[in-house]
Amino acid sequence: MAKDQGEVQLLGVGGSPFVRRVQIALKLKGIEYTYIEENLRNKSDLLLKYNPIHKKVPVFVHNGKPLAESLVILEYIDETWENYPIFPQQPYEKALARFWSRFIDDKILPAISKAAWTVNKEEREKGIEESLQALQFLENELKHKFFGGENISIVDIAASYLAFWLPAIEEAVGLKVLSSDKFPKLYKWSQEFNNHPIVKENLPPKDGLLGFFKSRYAAISAASK
Amino acid sequence: MAKDQGEVQLLGVGGSPFVRRVQIALKLKGIEYTYIEENLRNKSDLLLKYNPIHKKVPVFVHNGKPLAESLVILEYIDETWENYPIFPQQPYEKALARFWSRFIDDKILPAISKAAWTVNKEEREKGIEESLQALQFLENELKHKFFGGENISIVDIAASYLAFWLPAIEEAVGLKVLSSDKFPKLYKWSQEFNNHPIVKENLPPKDGLLGFFKSRYAAISAASK
Repeated sequence: MAKDQGEVQLLGVGGSPFVRRVQIALKLKGIEYTYIEENLRNKSDLLLKYNPIHKKVPVFVHNGKPLAESLVILEYIDETWENYPIFPQQPYEKALARFWSRFIDDKILPAISKAAWTVNKEEREKGIEESLQALQFLENELKHKFFGGENISIVDIAASYLAFWLPAIEEAVGLKVLSSDKFPKLYKWSQEFNNHPIVKENLPPKDGLLGFFKSRYAAISAASK
Repeated sequence: MAKDQGEVQLLGVGGSPFVRRVQIALKLKGIEYTYIEENLRNKSDLLLKYNPIHKKVPVFVHNGKPLAESLVILEYIDETWENYPIFPQQPYEKALARFWSRFIDDKILPAISKAAWTVNKEEREKGIEESLQALQFLENELKHKFFGGENISIVDIAASYLAFWLPAIEEAVGLKVLSSDKFPKLYKWSQEFNNHPIVKENLPPKDGLLGFFKSRYAAISAASK
C-alpha cells in the first residue's frame, strides 16, 4: 500500500454490484479505505451531501473530495494509484475497454432487468431475447482467461454482476440466460472470476442475495395478481 | 496538424449532435479526416461492419480501427492527439468531467426527449420537470465562460445539444426549458458556445434542423389522434 494514499472512504451497501466493483479495484491495488455502510431507505446526510444528484452508492471520497458513478470512480482510482493497472495502457485498447464497460451498463444490465423483473409476459420474453443478443456480443469478445488477458481488469470488474449476481437472480426468478451451453466462454469466465481470491473475499454472502431476490420476485408477482 | 496522424475517417450524419461532438474535437485539434455521410435508412456495409453492435453513428476509424460512442471516441482522440487538451489533466477534475458528460447523456437528454416527443400530457409534464431539475444541476456547475474555464473543453462539447439543437426543438414543439430567466448562466454559455468560431463552422444549418423537428412533431401529433 502506498503510504501517501491519503484518506479514502467508500459509502456503499453490501449487496450492490456497483459498490463491489470499487471494492475489488481497491483490493487489487492494495488501497486501504474506510467503508461506510449506507441504509438506502434512510439515506445518511453524508450520502446526500456527497452525491446530491443521484443520491446513490457507491460514493468514493478521496481526501474529502467525492465522486459518484462506479465506472467514473474506477477510472479515477486507476489514474491515481498506478500499481496493478486495471485499464489497458494503449489508447485504442483503453477505448475498447470503456466501450465494453458501458455496453454492460447500458445494454446488458437493462435487458436482464427486463427479463427478470417484468411481470408482463411479452415484455419479459423481449427482455430475454435482448439479454441473449447482448451476451452473445460479450461472449465473442472473450478471448483469454479474463477479458483483458490473464489478469482481472476493468471489463471483468464491470461484468462482475454477470458472474455473481445474475446466477442468484436466475435462481430466484426461474430464468436461465447465462447457461454453459449457450455461452461456454462467459460461463467458464464467471467461474474463474468468482474463484479469484481477491474477488472471492469481496463478494456478498450468496444466501442473503438469493433471499433478497426471492422476496423481490414474490412482491412483484403478488402486486401483479 | 500532426504529420503522422495516420488515416482518420468519420462516419456520420450531418444533423447528429453526437457526430458534431467528434467534428468539433477534431477541428479544435486540427486533425484532418475524411467524412463519410451515412444514410440511416439505408445503412452502408461500412457502418454495419464497423459498428455491428449499435449500428449507429458516429463511428470513428483511425488507421482502420473503428470506435463507436461519441464520449469514448472523444477520450480516444484526446489521448492520441495531445495538442489542445479537451479533458482536464488532473485525475479528479478529469473524473468530474466524465461524470458531467455522462450526466448530460444519461439524464438531461432523455428528460428533454420525454418533454419534447411524448404525446401523453402527463408524461410530457414529467419530462419537463425532470429537464428543469437536471438543467439546474448543470447551471450550478457553470462557473466560468465555459465549463472547464476560458476555453471549450469536454463538457461544453458534450453539452452542444443544449446550445444548438435544443432551441430548434423548443421552437418546433412549442416548449421552453432552457430560458434565460430560469438558467441565465447556461443561456449565456449557449450563446458563447454557438458563436465560437470553430463550433460555428461545425454546426448543421439551423433551418434544416428546424424543418426536421417540425415534421417529426407533426408526425407524432398526427399518429396520436
